[in-house]
Amino acid sequence: MKLEKLAGERFRERPSDCIADSHALMLRGGYMKYVANGIFSSYMPLKRILRKIEQIIREEMDAIDGQEVQFPVVMPASLWQESGRYESIGREMARFQDRSGNPLVLGMTHEEAAVQLVREYGKSYLKYPFMVYQIQTKFRDEARPRAGLIRVREFTMKDAYSFHTSQEDLEAYYEKCRSAYERIYKRVGLPEVISVASDSGMMGGSISHEFMLLTPVGEDSIAICPECGYRSNMEAAEHIIEMQRDGESAPLTRVHTPNIHSIEDVCSFLGASPKDSCKAVVYQRNSDDRYIVIFIRGDLEVNETKLTNHLGYEIHPAVITEDCGLHAGYIGPVCPGGDPIVLYDRSLEGRNNLSCGANISEYHYTGLDMERDVPDAEYVDLAKIQEGGICPCCKKPGITISHGIEVGNIFQLGTKYTKTMHMTYVDRDGASEHPVMGCYGIGVGRLAAAICEARHDDRGPIWPAAVAPWQIHLCAVRSDNAEVREYADRLYGELQSRGIEVIYDDRNVSAGVMFADADLLGVPCRVIVSPRNMKKQVVEITSRDQTFSRESALDSAAEELCRIVKDPAAS
Amino acid sequence: MKLEKLAGERFRERPSDCIADSHALMLRGGYMKYVANGIFSSYMPLKRILRKIEQIIREEMDAIDGQEVQFPVVMPASLWQESGRYESIGREMARFQDRSGNPLVLGMTHEEAAVQLVREYGKSYLKYPFMVYQIQTKFRDEARPRAGLIRVREFTMKDAYSFHTSQEDLEAYYEKCRSAYERIYKRVGLPEVISVASDSGMMGGSISHEFMLLTPVGEDSIAICPECGYRSNMEAAEHIIEMQRDGESAPLTRVHTPNIHSIEDVCSFLGASPKDSCKAVVYQRNSDDRYIVIFIRGDLEVNETKLTNHLGYEIHPAVITEDCGLHAGYIGPVCPGGDPIVLYDRSLEGRNNLSCGANISEYHYTGLDMERDVPDAEYVDLAKIQEGGICPCCKKPGITISHGIEVGNIFQLGTKYTKTMHMTYVDRDGASEHPVMGCYGIGVGRLAAAICEARHDDRGPIWPAAVAPWQIHLCAVRSDNAEVREYADRLYGELQSRGIEVIYDDRNVSAGVMFADADLLGVPCRVIVSPRNMKKQVVEITSRDQTFSRESALDSAAEELCRIVKDPAAS
Repeated sequence: MKLEKLAGERFRERPSDCIADSHALMLRGGYMKYVANGIFSSYMPLKRILRKIEQIIREEMDAIDGQEVQFPVVMPASLWQESGRYESIGREMARFQDRSGNPLVLGMTHEEAAVQLVREYGKSYLKYPFMVYQIQTKFRDEARPRAGLIRVREFTMKDAYSFHTSQEDLEAYYEKCRSAYERIYKRVGLPEVISVASDSGMMGGSISHEFMLLTPVGEDSIAICPECGYRSNMEAAEHIIEMQRDGESAPLTRVHTPNIHSIEDVCSFLGASPKDSCKAVVYQRNSDDRYIVIFIRGDLEVNETKLTNHLGYEIHPAVITEDCGLHAGYIGPVCPGGDPIVLYDRSLEGRNNLSCGANISEYHYTGLDMERDVPDAEYVDLAKIQEGGICPCCKKPGITISHGIEVGNIFQLGTKYTKTMHMTYVDRDGASEHPVMGCYGIGVGRLAAAICEARHDDRGPIWPAAVAPWQIHLCAVRSDNAEVREYADRLYGELQSRGIEVIYDDRNVSAGVMFADADLLGVPCRVIVSPRNMKKQVVEITSRDQTFSRESALDSAAEELCRIVKDPAAS
Repeated sequence: MKLEKLAGERFRERPSDCIADSHALMLRGGYMKYVANGIFSSYMPLKRILRKIEQIIREEMDAIDGQEVQFPVVMPASLWQESGRYESIGREMARFQDRSGNPLVLGMTHEEAAVQLVREYGKSYLKYPFMVYQIQTKFRDEARPRAGLIRVREFTMKDAYSFHTSQEDLEAYYEKCRSAYERIYKRVGLPEVISVASDSGMMGGSISHEFMLLTPVGEDSIAICPECGYRSNMEAAEHIIEMQRDGESAPLTRVHTPNIHSIEDVCSFLGASPKDSCKAVVYQRNSDDRYIVIFIRGDLEVNETKLTNHLGYEIHPAVITEDCGLHAGYIGPVCPGGDPIVLYDRSLEGRNNLSCGANISEYHYTGLDMERDVPDAEYVDLAKIQEGGICPCCKKPGITISHGIEVGNIFQLGTKYTKTMHMTYVDRDGASEHPVMGCYGIGVGRLAAAICEARHDDRGPIWPAAVAPWQIHLCAVRSDNAEVREYADRLYGELQSRGIEVIYDDRNVSAGVMFADADLLGVPCRVIVSPRNMKKQVVEITSRDQTFSRESALDSAAEELCRIVKDPAAS
């Protein structure tokens, strides 16, 4: 491919609205183009990267007996009504009607389609286990697309669905798939990806893991215990309580606290620590705007994933109106007004001598004793795990919180879909059973972005050889020089005839422009033909990751470049 | 792959609702599954066929300097408003709103997306020509999906878009692409596909061709001149008039024709030939239901594609109401009632002594002279070419009409999109110009179905080796026999280790079931291990297309099978 004819613009300035380096570099390097919020077109270099990643994923899925299939992008609503998700999934699912008025949806995941595909096939235990997968476009109407390819609305995903006759068999396959995922990340050049426990969210099921590339750009927070190796998405991490009851309870006492609203101000006014206060966090139910009040220890935050899982419906942060019965800034657990749903975090269980709102404007209480003053409270785990907190696994303090990009996930789904969609098989003993399912996803574009996040410098991406759009970037500096032109053209032809992927820059531009473009394309190995080099009867060969730079005789350059491409590690 | 674990059901009965053999066989063979009207999931065998077809297309597109890119499936309406097609395309385009109320569409073709992608890149004449293509899912809300994969609503398509600085350059590339298409059809096993002139439809532009597999199942009608080789989709074929004016015009005479409505009945009642009558065909404009009356010679049919192209808007067959002013069955060109749009087909130009409706219930005229009685008529070509008709090219009679499946199309688009979407480049002399475009499509699934239509017998598809899901179908007849099992397992391993694609049937089922399934999978070469063969120390090797069947010694079977796979023609 000649660079001159490569569609796409390259430019030097970082676009001002890019928070992620991968986003900025993929725009600057002519990898993709913005079409709409969270929707991009890909130019040839990115398409080549994506296809290489897809092929690696495909090989590893085939190696664990996956069968590549294809589900529709557009599905009838009836399929999602069978599983109940047509109602339970919110606005992230795109819905429309066809010309006859039939409701359709755009696939954002394909559990329903997978069950529909194999429901008749899997009638006998003899057929099990099996796994089907696809690599296909999906659309999810994300509220907040961000960071280029890291969070988009339209994306290409490998999604796999396995079917088993027992939980044990699912677990064995789940581990096999986890290993396949580890091989995939290693092969695409990201061996540092780790797996962490995760929340199953709308997928259902109990056990699930995410694969994370740790990077400050990531929007996921991961709790890691340096002591025992526990790793979990913060969304799914249990919060362990480390505080106990005071000896003696003071009486519940109303205190005038004018113009004091925030928990910090209240505590500072009362001379108490946030750890000794009970704060209220208020949400509303999406369906009817009914208020939901969560009481939690003053220094903790509500984990909205745990909260949503507990409630089983969608919520949003509350707008507290004048007449709703709640007193914003003064809400407390003793007789709150209005008719809210009230939940108590476990951090308050058994606590006493707390400060809290008095449900009267400008008044707080001190001396709150949960057992004495709120005897009917039931406690659930709704708090976020904190930096330095106690490890849910080894119970030692010292949890660290890191950010990560989720580049894959695996779920043990159980029988959630096979039960609701009436998929059964006849077991060895003639009994009718529901198969248990697993599902396994990798977002291809996001993985490309993650590779770019982890492998780049200021000048551009540094693509690992396995996913690089080309293997050799051939620069003919001063292509108007007849000697340079003739040798470079010949080398281009020779490398191509040997099946090497070459991008050839024979434009009549300065070496500076040429090298800046080469940096943006991030091809592992660069070879420079120039008048100075021709005089010395050599070409310069350098690697994009700066691990080597050397000269090679004109005669043997093609040979040497083939060697480098075939075994990048040995170069 | 072991057949036992291949997801998908195979069955013997032809589904009753299948008009096309490819549809029936792809359901019977476990290639695909119905999900909704015109929407299917693909099982592994079909997915493998599709991927092989895609790879052949990709190689041929790359060979004519195509750059593989990817456009979005979901696009903002604004992109289609730029070109004007958001309004001009009807209900076949799926439309919906995102969570913020922004209107979106599902891509059914990507001219707009292609221009958006390269609008900034193509600013200088130096960048031209170039071509970008994608292989991607599309959705078109067809009113009448039919015949399995032949006409669906969701489909995978290769669509390519070329950009040029002159019509001559476009024409040269158009011919290059036509040759690439011919190579593609040859490589996938359909060398008999022909190209025919076609109507450009909603794409715009003037010159376009379709690639047709001639088969009675096809829904397109193709006019072919055996004399000069003229080939055209009937939609686009000019209708040549072969009739002239009578010598003397009779007077216009009203005749009572009670209860006589159809053109045949009228002619028979009046003792005239349909060729000597003027019939009315009535449509209504979609936007406001205004009537459109076409007068045409009694023996001809209206070509709705020509009519729509002439009108420039969408129409539907009329519902003639009591009070609309038109007299159903008696409509004629002399003072028709109501306020219809009236068009005259060229077949009436200069004709006289015709019969026609009198615009009064139960009355017709005889002696109609178009020049005398309808002096202001303007004539356009709106008639369908007919079997035996005159060739528009060599003007000789003898046109034949065949049916075909359209398996590809190419269009010269001109500047329709680059003008409306304001794409310009600076020419050599500094002038600003709009590039001219070509576009080139192949539906991958439909091509697979077409191959199946052309290459099958009653028992199943006969896949050409280049697209077959596997190359060898290994049958272990009586796999409970230890000798059979041991040899077949070893042969399976050996073939796999040599990189041969093998489907292995080691189920404990009868040879009849085994062979019926093998016929349905249509793999080019079958090898049979059985107790009888083991006694003779041979395997049987047969081809699915019945061109050969022979025995091979156990020792050399793997070697021979590799030879057959590597060079199917030599076997």
